[in-house]
Amino acid sequence: MVELTQLMDNEVFMAFASYTTIVLSKMMFMSTATAFYRLTRKVFANPEDCAGFGKGENAKKYLRTDDRVERVRRAHLNDLENIVPFLGIGLLYSLSGPDLSTAILHFRLFVGARIYHTIAYLIPLPQPNRALAFFLGYGVTLSMAYRLLRSRLYL
Amino acid sequence: MVELTQLMDNEVFMAFASYTTIVLSKMMFMSTATAFYRLTRKVFANPEDCAGFGKGENAKKYLRTDDRVERVRRAHLNDLENIVPFLGIGLLYSLSGPDLSTAILHFRLFVGARIYHTIAYLIPLPQPNRALAFFLGYGVTLSMAYRLLRSRLYL
Amino acid sequence: MVELTQLMDNEVFMAFASYTTIVLSKMMFMSTATAFYRLTRKVFANPEDCAGFGKGENAKKYLRTDDRVERVRRAHLNDLENIVPFLGIGLLYSLSGPDLSTAILHFRLFVGARIYHTIAYLIPLPQPNRALAFFLGYGVTLSMAYRLLRSRLYL
Repeated sequence: MVELTQLMDNEVFMAFASYTTIVLSKMMFMSTATAFYRLTRKVFANPEDCAGFGKGENAKKYLRTDDRVERVRRAHLNDLENIVPFLGIGLLYSLSGPDLSTAILHFRLFVGARIYHTIAYLIPLPQPNRALAFFLGYGVTLSMAYRLLRSRLYL
Repeated sequence: MVELTQLMDNEVFMAFASYTTIVLSKMMFMSTATAFYRLTRKVFANPEDCAGFGKGENAKKYLRTDDRVERVRRAHLNDLENIVPFLGIGLLYSLSGPDLSTAILHFRLFVGARIYHTIAYLIPLPQPNRALAFFLGYGVTLSMAYRLLRSRLYL
Repeated sequence: MVELTQLMDNEVFMAFASYTTIVLSKMMFMSTATAFYRLTRKVFANPEDCAGFGKGENAKKYLRTDDRVERVRRAHLNDLENIVPFLGIGLLYSLSGPDLSTAILHFRLFVGARIYHTIAYLIPLPQPNRALAFFLGYGVTLSMAYRLLRSRLYL
């Protein structure tokens, strides 16, 4: 069995692993938030989910949409749309031998921006709080993509 | 050209590669299921998709939603929301040098939970079948995240 | 600090990194397209987003859906559903030591298919343009999954 610990001895890669795990755990929290609002507000998408709240037509009244649930779901989808590119581009960027402090700055800004984006979406804070958080995370990912393609383009 | 086969000689990494490929292929099957129900039930989201079923106003009647199609799409989105964290956290966990049998247990439980989740969603089975499958997969990913951060935190 | 540049000296891996960065950047462009149509058409999902266009009930009229915005969002979600499997399976396939020209053919076809899919979705082109682009990308990912499992299955 080959020792892979050398990959994890690389400081940029360890930092990427830590920040990625944090931002993905944050994204997973959105599932819990959706479940929490669905249960406390009795708002469901599937007939089998509200079978415990009544029989037949009585249960069907819980098959509805709710502003708060939809808001959490939009925040969750926005996370997916932005964290997937960070995951792919960030991994490849980490392996391309970037400067440690530059790489950590990228990771910190991205994770901070996504956490602030969630707060701004769920409270909600007035615009442009959420828009700025979105564009900061977006810009960080594009900056990593640019550095990666500039140094390692191979088509 | 550098030999990368050493990475694939690592048993944890090969197991991760196998289980990930299976669960991602399962997720891709959801696209086929959506296409199948859209075509057999004539339920479309885009005007150009139903142009073959009639002209003008006659075709527009197929621009509608359908319970079964929406159910498959919710199952697909739930897959995305859960498999993306598994992909990122699982990859980094696999590279952090975990015990082989512990790692394989994590991968098997996750893939089994997601396959059971899809079955419970599409049939559908009564709750809490789907909820338990969801929380099992969720717990496995969180367990990998915890082990990763405990051993390799670098902020 | 361990040198990781050996991973990036591998030509298949460098090609994967380049094509992945391009297709993820293309996916990120969909966010910008959504924002563009939301702002120019004044179509918003959140009350705080349209607060700048008027007070109270006057602003609420912009909380609506729009065919063009929904079309971009469907194209974006389809990207997510297809690029996530490519990201996971393609990474593991790249590390499994495939033939360079075969690997590059896979990457080129996938990236070309996804770019054509977006063009066919947004213009829109008549079917089966979009369907063929979808199935080409889908088939490329399945082909990589098959080659990976055939050579490296470990359950």
